[in-house]
Amino acid sequence: MADKRPIGVFDSGMGGLTVLRALMERLPSERFIYLGDTARLPYGTKSAETVEAYALQATRLLIEASVKMVVVACNTASSVALASLTRQLAPVPVIGVIEPGARAGIAATRNKRIAVIATESTVKGGAYLRAIHAIDASVEVVQQPAQVFVALAEEGWTESAVTIAASRAYLAPLFEGPSAPDTLVLGCTHFPVLVKAILEAVGDKVTIVDSAATTAASVADALAAKGLANEGKDKGAARFLATDSPERFARVGEIFLGRKIEKADVELVDLWPKP
Amino acid sequence: MADKRPIGVFDSGMGGLTVLRALMERLPSERFIYLGDTARLPYGTKSAETVEAYALQATRLLIEASVKMVVVACNTASSVALASLTRQLAPVPVIGVIEPGARAGIAATRNKRIAVIATESTVKGGAYLRAIHAIDASVEVVQQPAQVFVALAEEGWTESAVTIAASRAYLAPLFEGPSAPDTLVLGCTHFPVLVKAILEAVGDKVTIVDSAATTAASVADALAAKGLANEGKDKGAARFLATDSPERFARVGEIFLGRKIEKADVELVDLWPKP
Repeated sequence: MADKRPIGVFDSGMGGLTVLRALMERLPSERFIYLGDTARLPYGTKSAETVEAYALQATRLLIEASVKMVVVACNTASSVALASLTRQLAPVPVIGVIEPGARAGIAATRNKRIAVIATESTVKGGAYLRAIHAIDASVEVVQQPAQVFVALAEEGWTESAVTIAASRAYLAPLFEGPSAPDTLVLGCTHFPVLVKAILEAVGDKVTIVDSAATTAASVADALAAKGLANEGKDKGAARFLATDSPERFARVGEIFLGRKIEKADVELVDLWPKP
Repeated sequence: MADKRPIGVFDSGMGGLTVLRALMERLPSERFIYLGDTARLPYGTKSAETVEAYALQATRLLIEASVKMVVVACNTASSVALASLTRQLAPVPVIGVIEPGARAGIAATRNKRIAVIATESTVKGGAYLRAIHAIDASVEVVQQPAQVFVALAEEGWTESAVTIAASRAYLAPLFEGPSAPDTLVLGCTHFPVLVKAILEAVGDKVTIVDSAATTAASVADALAAKGLANEGKDKGAARFLATDSPERFARVGEIFLGRKIEKADVELVDLWPKP
């Protein structure tokens, strides 16, 4: 009962490393292959059709690497492409971050009002709204695209005055008045690194949740249910693949993984023929 | 002596519309085809190899549309791919924005100290440094990547407190002390729309220049020199092509073009086969 095949983790870039970090903490014996489609990031400003096409191309690379499961550690791709990926990558199971994030939000709210911040494309797709209402249709949901947060996180401006000002601009209007939400779901894997600046803007009465820990729990459950876990005493590990610039992946990736990434440990992979 | 073929204008996205605007003002009888590679934007965080491959694919589409000249209205692509584009698109002439921007900076500086802000990839490629020193090797140049400005411009936060804070974070250290530059070159076509916030940070003694007007003058000169100008009394026009989401191109593009763009006037084009 020890399936030593790796788990594939896919994101448009480096933000999904916040999910990989949670996965490695929750599943210390597992091996992971993380793929960031850095040649085409960000997905969050692109159309559903384009994101779906990119995600299918990219995740096929993980299938070729014989992964036993694919985790879509990208809210935008989970939002617009999860059904298609699940169908096309079968029988390899596919797990996204939206449904775990929706569950985390519902578990946290007391007043049944949840705010969700995400990329433009995730908000436009409405997947959080549907996922929350599928669990509890009585919960009020307000959504806010917060595209600038992606650039701020990648710049490493996690606690800067700029990020506090951006947090106020995006969030203050959502949390005014007596019917303000008591819970904020971070619906983009870039955003957890900005949590201190976000708390400055919304105040400490608001509970902030992200999908990293709940996604890791979902993955653990699915591995157990399908008999795919590596239950040995192996020491887990992660390999990194990127479709562009290993140097930038390593440098920016550290912000999200929370530990050093050596440039030499990031492999450049090519997804399509260049002219 | 009236060459009615259109001029191709190419950018990774919508920022190059600041250059198109200057071109339309300078050359009111010319027709333009503007192509934004929005499916793969931004170029500014991507490697030189990837940007070159993307730029070649995209500009071929303009050649197929029988343009008489290609203007690379993207600093990143001009910085890393101009030589290659010039070679591969010959005999169609190719004009970039770096050399005109360098000339504008040199024309403006009195103390022979110029600061350049640009994308990560433009700074890394060092093209402004080389272009300025090719004209005057005695000019001191400091370069600063300012990647967050791209997201702020696309969000339309042109004069917001967030943009002023970001301008201070990037620029205040460059303009301190008695040997501060007196000129700031905006080395990314997104940045001209942020000029008010940038002035808040650097003070009004600094001259801010961008390459839009000087590029338009270079294009006018090249058209005249090669006998390619449309010297009639035609009313100029522009067509818009985008590789993703005409809706977002129209919405965000207005910020840079300074006038309304109808979604129906933006044509979706495909650069590569989807899976």
